[in-house]
Amino acid sequence: MTSDTDPFDNSALREKGSAFMPKFDAAGLVSAVVQDVASGRVLMLAFMNREAIACTQETGLAHFYSRSRQRLWQKGESSGNVLRVKEIRVDCDQDALLLLAEPAGPACHTGATSCFYRQLSGESLSPV
Amino acid sequence: MTSDTDPFDNSALREKGSAFMPKFDAAGLVSAVVQDVASGRVLMLAFMNREAIACTQETGLAHFYSRSRQRLWQKGESSGNVLRVKEIRVDCDQDALLLLAEPAGPACHTGATSCFYRQLSGESLSPV
Repeated sequence: MTSDTDPFDNSALREKGSAFMPKFDAAGLVSAVVQDVASGRVLMLAFMNREAIACTQETGLAHFYSRSRQRLWQKGESSGNVLRVKEIRVDCDQDALLLLAEPAGPACHTGATSCFYRQLSGESLSPV
Repeated sequence: MTSDTDPFDNSALREKGSAFMPKFDAAGLVSAVVQDVASGRVLMLAFMNREAIACTQETGLAHFYSRSRQRLWQKGESSGNVLRVKEIRVDCDQDALLLLAEPAGPACHTGATSCFYRQLSGESLSPV
């Protein structure tokens, strides 16, 4: 949320401007949603720091920052299931990115096409 | 990421089980992506705490937790642009949710259909 009275508030610039001003959280991260550019399926959600964004832009392959491993990683670096990024979109307050990508294989490390392979009903999960 | 040797690691249960075991971060939050169930468009990304998940399940209307305002909010509570949640999906490690929803109006507070209304090229943003 924003304040109209804060002269140091960049929210208007962030929302309406043409400059990329990612709003990193305290850990230096923004959220990144990956959507299959062909099927429209949401494949996964991960986090990116400044370096992950730069590496993704430079290579065209999705890079993320692992909070648990505390390091940069390229999606598919071990499995080969890379994500070829066709477009990067930015949300209104620039704290989230949407990567439109072509997956080379299953996006999920479990082998599922998408990490979102279960639906919630009450407290129970069942396959989509 | 998980450890095969940690006996207290719930990762296998989280990935393969049928029990909802959300993995909240240090702030008690999981990420939530909202996708238009009809168009497939990714509309927004926000955060949910336990209460937001419960309120969403009870009412069928998307509720989130605002990190900046530090309170629960119902999407559309002031604008009327509620999100009617048709399905909630959970990702492999249960730290992200995907809400498949019918939006009552523009999802973005700027009036845009989706919060992701700009694409990134180098350091510049342009309308999608």
